[in-house]
Amino acid sequence: MDELRDISVGEFFARNKQLLGFNSPKRAILTTVKEAVDNSLDACEEAEILPEISVMIESVEDSVVRVTVSDNGPGIPYEHAPAVFGKLLFGSRFHKFAQSRGQQGIGISAAVLYAMLTTGEATEILVKTRESDKANKWKLYLNISNNTPKILSTEEFKWDRESGVQVSLVLKAQLTSGPWSVREYLQQTSLVNPHATIKYKSPEEEIVLERTSDELPHRPKAINPHPHGLDFGLFSEACKDYPGSVGDFLAGSLSGISTSNINKLCKALGRIKTKEIAKLAIAQPTIVKQMYDELQGMKLQPPDLDCISPIGEIGMLLGLPRLLKSDYVVVDSRPPAIYSGTPFLVETGLIHAPGEQNRLYRFANKVPLLYKSGACVITDAAKEVNWKAYQLSQTKATLPENVILFAHVASPYVPFESESKEAIADYPEILNELKLSFQACGRDLKKHLDKLAKVRAAKERMDYTKKFAPHCATAIGQILDMSAKNIKKLETEIINLLEKKREP
Amino acid sequence: MDELRDISVGEFFARNKQLLGFNSPKRAILTTVKEAVDNSLDACEEAEILPEISVMIESVEDSVVRVTVSDNGPGIPYEHAPAVFGKLLFGSRFHKFAQSRGQQGIGISAAVLYAMLTTGEATEILVKTRESDKANKWKLYLNISNNTPKILSTEEFKWDRESGVQVSLVLKAQLTSGPWSVREYLQQTSLVNPHATIKYKSPEEEIVLERTSDELPHRPKAINPHPHGLDFGLFSEACKDYPGSVGDFLAGSLSGISTSNINKLCKALGRIKTKEIAKLAIAQPTIVKQMYDELQGMKLQPPDLDCISPIGEIGMLLGLPRLLKSDYVVVDSRPPAIYSGTPFLVETGLIHAPGEQNRLYRFANKVPLLYKSGACVITDAAKEVNWKAYQLSQTKATLPENVILFAHVASPYVPFESESKEAIADYPEILNELKLSFQACGRDLKKHLDKLAKVRAAKERMDYTKKFAPHCATAIGQILDMSAKNIKKLETEIINLLEKKREP
Repeated sequence: MDELRDISVGEFFARNKQLLGFNSPKRAILTTVKEAVDNSLDACEEAEILPEISVMIESVEDSVVRVTVSDNGPGIPYEHAPAVFGKLLFGSRFHKFAQSRGQQGIGISAAVLYAMLTTGEATEILVKTRESDKANKWKLYLNISNNTPKILSTEEFKWDRESGVQVSLVLKAQLTSGPWSVREYLQQTSLVNPHATIKYKSPEEEIVLERTSDELPHRPKAINPHPHGLDFGLFSEACKDYPGSVGDFLAGSLSGISTSNINKLCKALGRIKTKEIAKLAIAQPTIVKQMYDELQGMKLQPPDLDCISPIGEIGMLLGLPRLLKSDYVVVDSRPPAIYSGTPFLVETGLIHAPGEQNRLYRFANKVPLLYKSGACVITDAAKEVNWKAYQLSQTKATLPENVILFAHVASPYVPFESESKEAIADYPEILNELKLSFQACGRDLKKHLDKLAKVRAAKERMDYTKKFAPHCATAIGQILDMSAKNIKKLETEIINLLEKKREP
Repeated sequence: MDELRDISVGEFFARNKQLLGFNSPKRAILTTVKEAVDNSLDACEEAEILPEISVMIESVEDSVVRVTVSDNGPGIPYEHAPAVFGKLLFGSRFHKFAQSRGQQGIGISAAVLYAMLTTGEATEILVKTRESDKANKWKLYLNISNNTPKILSTEEFKWDRESGVQVSLVLKAQLTSGPWSVREYLQQTSLVNPHATIKYKSPEEEIVLERTSDELPHRPKAINPHPHGLDFGLFSEACKDYPGSVGDFLAGSLSGISTSNINKLCKALGRIKTKEIAKLAIAQPTIVKQMYDELQGMKLQPPDLDCISPIGEIGMLLGLPRLLKSDYVVVDSRPPAIYSGTPFLVETGLIHAPGEQNRLYRFANKVPLLYKSGACVITDAAKEVNWKAYQLSQTKATLPENVILFAHVASPYVPFESESKEAIADYPEILNELKLSFQACGRDLKKHLDKLAKVRAAKERMDYTKKFAPHCATAIGQILDMSAKNIKKLETEIINLLEKKREP
């Protein structure tokens, strides 16, 4: 073994760019737009601003495009802006335990890295905050070898808006249409974010997706981690970082622990409630382990579920018909549940679509997931449900025919399969909730289909009766030598009689 | 936005442990064994040692196990050992462009991280190199907050072996049986690594997988990256790091560039051949971009394909029957191909298995891939082939019935979907090679099935003729008043006549 050495985070991701969703020029453009737009939506929601987002794609040369995404969000503190765009693993959201679109601190800086990697071009960033009169402009790239922003230029300027961010990247990319396109991503984003106006302009088209609601979504509450969802190693780190007493740490840094729990616990471990936890953790690491183990065994309050912001049944009922006009749409929203200590919520919908290509729309924290359907727990759930029980045709372990399915997983921490955030890992609790929700939709669909079948049968019977009655009446009329008027009357009576007789 | 800050690599992966293949206690045990065994096999191959690997799993308490993996490999230089196990993104293999099992510098340190994260326990490491008389023992864990090894103890000791490594981790895990088990992984590993002896002991069972070959596999050559497979950003970094002239850089750090190419290129850019490339890259970055662009447009020699070590047709033909006894096995080996500048090779096999559950065995660089089948390009390829053309029944876009499929992708850089290395990303060139190879197997199978069908038809015809001939002969015999002997003779002649007549 030779040349053993450190590998920089920048180098690691530069050499493994498929981990970040930059496999191919086609996917690169989508990933870039997605990271920028997700950030804009998050920032606007945090600042309670109705989002106005514009996405522009210009062709620079063969296989090279400029992507510019602009928003009316609150901006970014100027001292942090270069790192937000020019450093992998930098962010605010990582420690806050609240539902948001970006959650890893990698997103947009990965796009800046990819731009430099493929074209050598720096990224241009414009930022204005409300607090400042002047806006700031940077040209920078991500220095692979040490994962820091390399700033080429910075200048102040007057920007004709109250606040906002605009990022402009030049990258190797290929614009496509269809189910993996930027347009499709923006349309699905608009569907589940009706409060956002999104403008899109590319060399091929220009569209405006106007907001359909002026109401800001329920802002998810940030919560502390719950002991039952925290690995020991992270618990122990948190102890070492905390600047106060054991009692304050348990009450203020974690959720679900009552005062009586705290007292009981601190007493059992030797009256440690007022001791400084950081010092204790270093001097007596076994006490931290004991504390953790005790907490695992304790009956605690469940995690606060107010940290989740679903689309809601009404939101889905308003949105789904935009996917396809149909005679029948049903939605289901599950109560919040918990997977390894983390709260989450599942919502699904179903559009009856006879003769249409079946399809599954997947969303995580209101972000459409376009790639990696085969790796996603949502797809697993949709395939594992026995849809035949709900009168749909289905080849074993595939999606059902004649319906369009929709599913949304919302959580302060969605466990994605990779940094590209296109597929959700298969935690059994999430799988189960999804299946239960799909099944609820299925049951409603079955009722609808049963009713349709009953109506159809009644109609067929009526048609048959109507065909039969005139001949019968004429025959009887001839035998009894009845008048034409009486024959007509007889016919009506025969129809009524048969209808009544055959009613269930 | 508040609390913007750096996130340590350790913290990032600790909070996103599903990225590393540690979603669940069931998967954690497999991932741990896999990382350790893959390292052992790589190390033995590099040192040209026939591997003897032992894997032991002991139950410590409910849901906690101790995993111990031991090998007879060359060991690790003592000064590097703590970082190999206690630091993410540290390794030798990252820069070497040669086929190996581990390629990211994350593997085993992720398992050390997970052990500490879930149980707080340090990992015990024993190392001996041939050069040293004494072996070394460390107890250490990975410090999340700064991604460095935290060494609790280190001591020299006498170890009764020439060289080797033994790693012992205590982690939250759950031992399972079936297709995602440690046993399954080891059995499949043994199948494609016939030169390795692997011992496995768990609370449930004890098995020894003896080597079936004493021949070390062809050792793949390490090659320099090819310009057509290198992103500009990495090319530019390499220029800045190189301690010599432009000419030496082009000849010595890259592959595929002939001397005449170098001369042409250096002349076109202003007689830069003897200039120091690192200085040039900093002083005139545009020249580096020009050089890169020129190289992209140049016709270069293809990458050296000797960097690939396939299983080989004979290897597959020896291994496949161990999966299932069958009347028919076929294998196919494609010539090396290139995806975005990187060489790779695809091999597939097919076992005719009427009445058996269909299955697809996936391998990358001789490592079995058990999880994430749905996200893997191998699965995509197997489903996209139209197997009906080869007389197999197949529901659209699923695996064919009545066969067991096998596929191996070998490359100095396999583009995995995530750090857990269980699924290969869908590069179109890889997809295409896989499909071509599966189709070749399919064509051979069809010939076999056609022949079987012909034999079956001939047999049926024979049966029919034999049934018919005696009656016919008897009837004619009675009419012509023939002797019994002559009737028998006539019967034989009728059979011969009918057989001849009906031959195609």
